[in-house]
Amino acid sequence: MDEVLYYAGADIGGTKIKFGLYKKGVCSEGLEAKWDIPTDISDSGSHILGDIAVSLKKVCADRNIDYSLIAGIGIGVPGPADSCGVVKECVNLGWKNVDVRGEFRKISGIPVVMAGNDANVAALGEMWKGSGCGFDNLVMVTLGTGVGGGVIIDGRIHPGSTGAAGEIGHITVNPYETEMCNCKSRGCLEQYSSATGIVRLAKQMMDISGEELDAKTVIDMAKAGDESADRAVDKAMEYLGMALSNIACVTDPQVFIIGGGVSAAGEFLIKKIEKYYNMYSMNTLKNKEFKIAGLGNDAGFYGCIKMVMDNA
Amino acid sequence: MDEVLYYAGADIGGTKIKFGLYKKGVCSEGLEAKWDIPTDISDSGSHILGDIAVSLKKVCADRNIDYSLIAGIGIGVPGPADSCGVVKECVNLGWKNVDVRGEFRKISGIPVVMAGNDANVAALGEMWKGSGCGFDNLVMVTLGTGVGGGVIIDGRIHPGSTGAAGEIGHITVNPYETEMCNCKSRGCLEQYSSATGIVRLAKQMMDISGEELDAKTVIDMAKAGDESADRAVDKAMEYLGMALSNIACVTDPQVFIIGGGVSAAGEFLIKKIEKYYNMYSMNTLKNKEFKIAGLGNDAGFYGCIKMVMDNA
Repeated sequence: MDEVLYYAGADIGGTKIKFGLYKKGVCSEGLEAKWDIPTDISDSGSHILGDIAVSLKKVCADRNIDYSLIAGIGIGVPGPADSCGVVKECVNLGWKNVDVRGEFRKISGIPVVMAGNDANVAALGEMWKGSGCGFDNLVMVTLGTGVGGGVIIDGRIHPGSTGAAGEIGHITVNPYETEMCNCKSRGCLEQYSSATGIVRLAKQMMDISGEELDAKTVIDMAKAGDESADRAVDKAMEYLGMALSNIACVTDPQVFIIGGGVSAAGEFLIKKIEKYYNMYSMNTLKNKEFKIAGLGNDAGFYGCIKMVMDNA
Repeated sequence: MDEVLYYAGADIGGTKIKFGLYKKGVCSEGLEAKWDIPTDISDSGSHILGDIAVSLKKVCADRNIDYSLIAGIGIGVPGPADSCGVVKECVNLGWKNVDVRGEFRKISGIPVVMAGNDANVAALGEMWKGSGCGFDNLVMVTLGTGVGGGVIIDGRIHPGSTGAAGEIGHITVNPYETEMCNCKSRGCLEQYSSATGIVRLAKQMMDISGEELDAKTVIDMAKAGDESADRAVDKAMEYLGMALSNIACVTDPQVFIIGGGVSAAGEFLIKKIEKYYNMYSMNTLKNKEFKIAGLGNDAGFYGCIKMVMDNA
């Protein structure tokens, strides 16, 4: 009989917690189950870790999996997590100074518990099972409501000294911006290249004030040949291309993975990003690979599993 | 008797090769010698590696050091070096596709040979014996004729996938620049914050066209209270502070080390850099440490020694 261990991943989002349970045997391995539960952010998010443990136990019981064979769990959180698994602040969950590793180990009895930032674990997930497969130095960019990022160096998450590495949405791309970013600075990448940013640019460039717009509509209009919509998307991707070129000057990755809701626009965006990336890059850094993320919302729990498997 | 081994560093510059020889025993260790020789760039730089071997042998002979006890040598080059020790192009030396590791091992008989970019080895040197002592995640910026950089992650050089990590002089800080950088792009950090850049800004802001100016003069005038000189230095440091804030969004280092000729201006510059860094940074990344480099031109060979000692 194959000797097996299990590794779990739980990617905590603002509305859902997405789980994956991975079976690792000597002879075979693979994803055993994936599911999700709602995120209960009441009482400063104090029920979240308990809910994760309960859900894991229930799924194991339902499937006749011996819970004690879970060797480790990785937990993704929407905020910076330091290398000891402590989350200083996580606004979306109401968390302040939560020792994810320590608390969850007590609650769950699982021996190895790790915590990572959601964008970082997504990047690791894409490296392991998605578009980043075969690479070990990559940067993933998530274009959603905001712009997130994860930096993978030598096959591992680079969390940085305070867990804030990969916060590329706050790279300054336009020092002349007058509007303020959520972070209180001005001219951040997130102000242009997120879904929100694309809509903001479109409202500046298109004659449609008053109408309800979303990023998908703007991009679809651009794809259909609307010139002012295309100008807005183009500007958003110019700032992104420039930011990626700046990132390349720092870590020189092999590939950039583009994920998040906006990335559904696929090759249309990649072409624009590549064009501006090369325009702003020095010769030795030109012609990197750009790929659309492959795992969608599963990237997070895959990365959580990989993170803990590499360390258990 | 103490059992000792020796590790050498040779930092190849455009005019000089700077050497260090480090003695490592069980009971004691330290720098045994440092010296330099001129760089012979004739015949496409083909004499350089031979000259290094000859000089090392001579110094060993002069000091009664058994040459066969040299366990490794690190070689710093003014260009990108990949992880196999191959230098694709190094304009200042006339090199094209030089296999530094392979060739030097043949010439010298030294078992372990490593090559690294000069800015990267300087960063490692500062971490080991200079202002970066006690840190293992840092970024060093060299403000000289150009702007160079080195990225240290978990105590080691991060060379990047093509050896171009740390090329922070070519981060775009002003997408509206009209003048071209040496790299053929526009608005690179190097166009503002290098010695050359400071003079360029001063010529734009001060009423001194025609006069011969150097960066030291401009900075000294700014220190003495000249308002337009101060505006020029301030602008140069604003762009640098902004670029460092962008770098922090990628790798989140513990400390920034500022080196190179311009850094002689010391605290006067650090204050300006810190001010603008904090102005452009998101909250979680504010208040990093900024330090002036401590080893001057010795940083390179120290880093070469450390690089090879960590891998021999």
